[in-house]
Amino acid sequence: MTDSLTAPAETQAVLSYLTGLQQRITDAVAAHEPEARFVVDEWQKPPGELLQGRGRTMILEGGAVFERAGVGLSHVRGPQLPPSATQHRPELAGAPFEAMGVSLVFHPRNPYVPTVHMNVRMLAALPAGDSAVCWFGGGMDLTPYYGVREDCVHFHQTCHDVLQPFGDDKYPRFKQWCDDYFYLKHRHEQRGIGGIFFDDFSEFDHARNFAMLQAVGDGFLPAYLPIVQRRKDQAWGERERSFQLYRRGRYVEFNLVWDRGTHFGLQSGGRTESILLSMPPQASWAYRRGEQPGSAEARLYTDFLPRQDWLAA
Amino acid sequence: MTDSLTAPAETQAVLSYLTGLQQRITDAVAAHEPEARFVVDEWQKPPGELLQGRGRTMILEGGAVFERAGVGLSHVRGPQLPPSATQHRPELAGAPFEAMGVSLVFHPRNPYVPTVHMNVRMLAALPAGDSAVCWFGGGMDLTPYYGVREDCVHFHQTCHDVLQPFGDDKYPRFKQWCDDYFYLKHRHEQRGIGGIFFDDFSEFDHARNFAMLQAVGDGFLPAYLPIVQRRKDQAWGERERSFQLYRRGRYVEFNLVWDRGTHFGLQSGGRTESILLSMPPQASWAYRRGEQPGSAEARLYTDFLPRQDWLAA
Repeated sequence: MTDSLTAPAETQAVLSYLTGLQQRITDAVAAHEPEARFVVDEWQKPPGELLQGRGRTMILEGGAVFERAGVGLSHVRGPQLPPSATQHRPELAGAPFEAMGVSLVFHPRNPYVPTVHMNVRMLAALPAGDSAVCWFGGGMDLTPYYGVREDCVHFHQTCHDVLQPFGDDKYPRFKQWCDDYFYLKHRHEQRGIGGIFFDDFSEFDHARNFAMLQAVGDGFLPAYLPIVQRRKDQAWGERERSFQLYRRGRYVEFNLVWDRGTHFGLQSGGRTESILLSMPPQASWAYRRGEQPGSAEARLYTDFLPRQDWLAA
Repeated sequence: MTDSLTAPAETQAVLSYLTGLQQRITDAVAAHEPEARFVVDEWQKPPGELLQGRGRTMILEGGAVFERAGVGLSHVRGPQLPPSATQHRPELAGAPFEAMGVSLVFHPRNPYVPTVHMNVRMLAALPAGDSAVCWFGGGMDLTPYYGVREDCVHFHQTCHDVLQPFGDDKYPRFKQWCDDYFYLKHRHEQRGIGGIFFDDFSEFDHARNFAMLQAVGDGFLPAYLPIVQRRKDQAWGERERSFQLYRRGRYVEFNLVWDRGTHFGLQSGGRTESILLSMPPQASWAYRRGEQPGSAEARLYTDFLPRQDWLAA
């Protein structure tokens, strides 16, 4: 995405990385899809709105492997940082800002392939006559329907390994942050088996903060694609489909009720179709659906959703 | 529901009305269903919680006419009215209270039969040594997939007629309140074709307030069942099903993002399965689904969802 909004070199470099990341990820997904294609929707906020910005939404629907795969890139600029963003940096209050990120959710067709979410983003304050101050956030997390221990360990191991160069503390902190964030309080349930999540990150200098963001973004395909490869041809039927649709209802509940980006985005006039890229293509609800104790469905609740250390020896 | 929570005769009478209403409505629905039956789930809040209460959830799933029909009755008691409830009545601040209501959502299988929602409820403050002070709320609203003018007029005419004995102003006020409330701001769309909605109502004496509540509750079956009768055998196929599932996604979005009862109920530890009785059995999402101009699907947006006076001569 060429972009005339941005002046500082730091933010231009991040935008360029994000643009390339969206392309690499959608290329990798498209390679699994003999028929379906990504629709590319370039959008721009109408002139005159307070927040100016543009984005590129890429979405594949009705694929052979992915029933719905949305990858959004957005870049917005506003005249004044909101107070919530400058609580710890009062000298930046009211500064112009830019926010940019790539966000994706993939809903596979085969119930044995987990749903996945990944996001990398940067918020830059641009105080007049001074250099940009940038914070980073993001992460990735996995939501299986039928848990497979090997897949969960692989996903977490990859998250661990990409963060390792940035310090021993990063994976455990961001893993717990993810568990805390992706929790459905009204169900007393985790959304999935977690992964990593971080926000407002600026512990290193800009170059190293950005390097960590890149490590996470670049880690997504190696964390997820091998799981898709292993499970996509596993046979499934009505039973698995029914459980998948029911569990996707939880995904909807989390995103619309608890996810701050989604809930406040919709309430505050964000671009609805981009925000709701995360919605599953289909979902279902049933009253007090119970699972046969010991069944594969019941094991999701007993063996996979409860928080645990996936990398314990 | 026999109930030992309630002391005052006023609240006992309302509870008794609500209990009978739930039974009458579920009997009327069951009469359409040769196979499926309502599951009756009597629940009680565990002792020791701040809010004490019980309820009867009745739900029919997988019926021939109704794919999912949930009718909840609940009755809770708390030690102290929340501040939001006593803004206009400071003398009642901190008084014990009771809240009771019947709430229902029916999701029919046939896309030509509209989804419907109805709720009647009462909040009673019980100041020590004084008589109960009661407020009433509720209403009903219709959400068609394929609009039929005659059905919309019938629904609104019935709402109008049941309120007419309580003053000329009631239907127009409550109709507008309903349009204002059931609005998806993030879609710039009404949820459906409206109906009536009111809250904090105490304009008459207790007996007449309660009589108005009963008129609304009793008006539900005559407002809705004739529409079900007229449309339930209309032929439909994949096209209508697809549009119904997509539009049900809007119902989910409204309830989880905008409906105060649902959103805050889930956030504040309400009984999840009862709150989510309103969810459709299945729903779908698609990116920027557009309708053929002039098609029956497009006409929902152009001719039915926009606010209008359904009773204009």
